[in-house]
Amino acid sequence: MAYDSNNIFAKILRGEIPCTKVYEDEHTLAFMDIMPQAEGHTLVITKEHAETILDLSPAAAAAWIHTVQKVAKAVKKAMGVDGFVLMQLNGVAAGQSVPHVHFHILPTSLGTLMTRAHGAQMGDLQQIQGYAEKIKAELAK
Amino acid sequence: MAYDSNNIFAKILRGEIPCTKVYEDEHTLAFMDIMPQAEGHTLVITKEHAETILDLSPAAAAAWIHTVQKVAKAVKKAMGVDGFVLMQLNGVAAGQSVPHVHFHILPTSLGTLMTRAHGAQMGDLQQIQGYAEKIKAELAK
Repeated sequence: MAYDSNNIFAKILRGEIPCTKVYEDEHTLAFMDIMPQAEGHTLVITKEHAETILDLSPAAAAAWIHTVQKVAKAVKKAMGVDGFVLMQLNGVAAGQSVPHVHFHILPTSLGTLMTRAHGAQMGDLQQIQGYAEKIKAELAK
Repeated sequence: MAYDSNNIFAKILRGEIPCTKVYEDEHTLAFMDIMPQAEGHTLVITKEHAETILDLSPAAAAAWIHTVQKVAKAVKKAMGVDGFVLMQLNGVAAGQSVPHVHFHILPTSLGTLMTRAHGAQMGDLQQIQGYAEKIKAELAK
């Protein structure tokens, strides 16, 4: 499927709409999910335009997973959890809501996650900003 | 945490117990989950010993995500689905049951997935073997 360059993550990448950024490098961007399914719910996206993981170049995929490792480590420490779930939805049929490839870092358990709907409700933006500051502080260590 | 070399995936890697393999290369191994949460549920593991994604070397992480891309493409075609979920649990607190880093490829929707317990019930091994054959046929194309 052709990439839709008007999706919300493409707009974030172009700086047309804001995000609560926690990390950025040449190939990737990480920011807070504003409809969190867990406290500290963070997203990692590629700068390469791709709808699903199947559309991503091997180089972009490698950069992406390295950022996931780096940011997940910081999220885990910042949120003080013992475990976290990585989730990644491919295709509307799977429940993907934004057609730009993204990993969810969810500092919670699968059991708890299963009780919360995906992308259903806006979070408390001030609280989310507070989590972002903690995550950035861990990344800066 | 120290890696437990007696976990079931370490035993599979050493060939001490069998698996329904669909793909193998120098750095990774993919095989069917025998307690599937979806038809065609496939696992991708690294040969590098690591309990979670945080313990994995960058090189192993890159090889791992590349195999996930390759195998997920084949699983999607073999199972005839329009979408799939990638899931990856880190730590007992998150619900990780085998302490060797693994990706779940789930050819289903998040909504459907949330109605099924993780690793709760043995699947039909003959049916699983049939899915494996289809996935291997796609990988051979």
